[in-house]
Amino acid sequence: MNKKAVVLLSGGIDSATTLAVAKSMNFEIYALSFRYGQRHIIELESAKRVARHFDAIRHLIADIDLGLIGGSALTDKIDVPKNRDLQDLSKNIPITYVPARNTIFLAYALAWAEVIGAEDIFIGVNALDYSGYPDCRPEFISAFEKMANLATKSSVENKRGIKINTPLIEMSKAQIIQKGSALGVDFSLTHSCYDPSADGAACGECDSCLLRLAGFRAAGIADPVKYN
Amino acid sequence: MNKKAVVLLSGGIDSATTLAVAKSMNFEIYALSFRYGQRHIIELESAKRVARHFDAIRHLIADIDLGLIGGSALTDKIDVPKNRDLQDLSKNIPITYVPARNTIFLAYALAWAEVIGAEDIFIGVNALDYSGYPDCRPEFISAFEKMANLATKSSVENKRGIKINTPLIEMSKAQIIQKGSALGVDFSLTHSCYDPSADGAACGECDSCLLRLAGFRAAGIADPVKYN
Repeated sequence: MNKKAVVLLSGGIDSATTLAVAKSMNFEIYALSFRYGQRHIIELESAKRVARHFDAIRHLIADIDLGLIGGSALTDKIDVPKNRDLQDLSKNIPITYVPARNTIFLAYALAWAEVIGAEDIFIGVNALDYSGYPDCRPEFISAFEKMANLATKSSVENKRGIKINTPLIEMSKAQIIQKGSALGVDFSLTHSCYDPSADGAACGECDSCLLRLAGFRAAGIADPVKYN
Repeated sequence: MNKKAVVLLSGGIDSATTLAVAKSMNFEIYALSFRYGQRHIIELESAKRVARHFDAIRHLIADIDLGLIGGSALTDKIDVPKNRDLQDLSKNIPITYVPARNTIFLAYALAWAEVIGAEDIFIGVNALDYSGYPDCRPEFISAFEKMANLATKSSVENKRGIKINTPLIEMSKAQIIQKGSALGVDFSLTHSCYDPSADGAACGECDSCLLRLAGFRAAGIADPVKYN
């Protein structure tokens, strides 16, 4: 029997590629997404399509209450910034940062991993993210893993460890797109835009669209999603 | 202005006493509870009364989806054990253990602390708990704190640290009850039973009732809640 892995899946390029990597390592895929007060639920539709595309054993969508806590342009009523210089993105933590988001997501993944008996969790953080988001940095992931190995019944009783896998952590967006492409990710199923129009078309101007478009350009691959 | 603290509040004796300790240290209280698929929502009514009693600035009840993940007698349809020998409780992890619960609760507390600018989180884990629950042990709390200090924007930008306060960690149940009593906790507002009757009376037979009753006896204080 193949080993099980819990894969955090947002429906964007990074998590779709991460799922493809886990699949290529012969893990049974338990995909985990969140309904967390995102303004655009279209992300979850993308996540469902990606999970189906890669034959996930289960795809769990957990409802969590980040909107109640607030503090981010992704969950609060703060405007999403548009057409910023990509050079600037690495200098400050973006206001689209959701407080402690990866801590919360990984905590759920840990709970589910324990219940299904998985020792592996996959998360698609990468070099571009961790210049802006503190909870994408390798030192955060490593500290989370240490904590996780003290947190669970299985770690105490069976000395079974939890590994937080970050296959994209050293990759640029272009490298992720090339990797995903090689592993059969259908990027038309993915969604990145922070501010899509009602029909789901991407704005092409938010930080996420700008990074995505630059990544596809650098990878020499056409982006199959629709832009306004 | 007083410093702010996020206090995890379940409505039981331990978290009520923890809140009283934070209050006695002149923190402004931001109480945080969870609706997590507990079978008995009466816990939350106790939490609300305790928060009100100690003039919490806010009391947030976050909806989270632990029931969906499953794996515990507290969220799944597994029978709550009754009339066990208290000596046995310390030997095995109880089936009322909820996978990664404190990791998830503390992750939310961390998110809220960041949004409101609090540097202190209080959680009522103690010596009795941590013989049974891995995520109540001091080494877990310490690893969580290390991780938290790598997870947030404020820890990166302002070098502002997060402290996880565990004022009860070395205390027995009797000591907690004496401490709470000295700090003005009204224990008639609290709730501990895993299996209360419809009118809210405690069963007196589950692990939680047995520990509570033994604690009150050892403290030489009468337990004001109603038992069947």
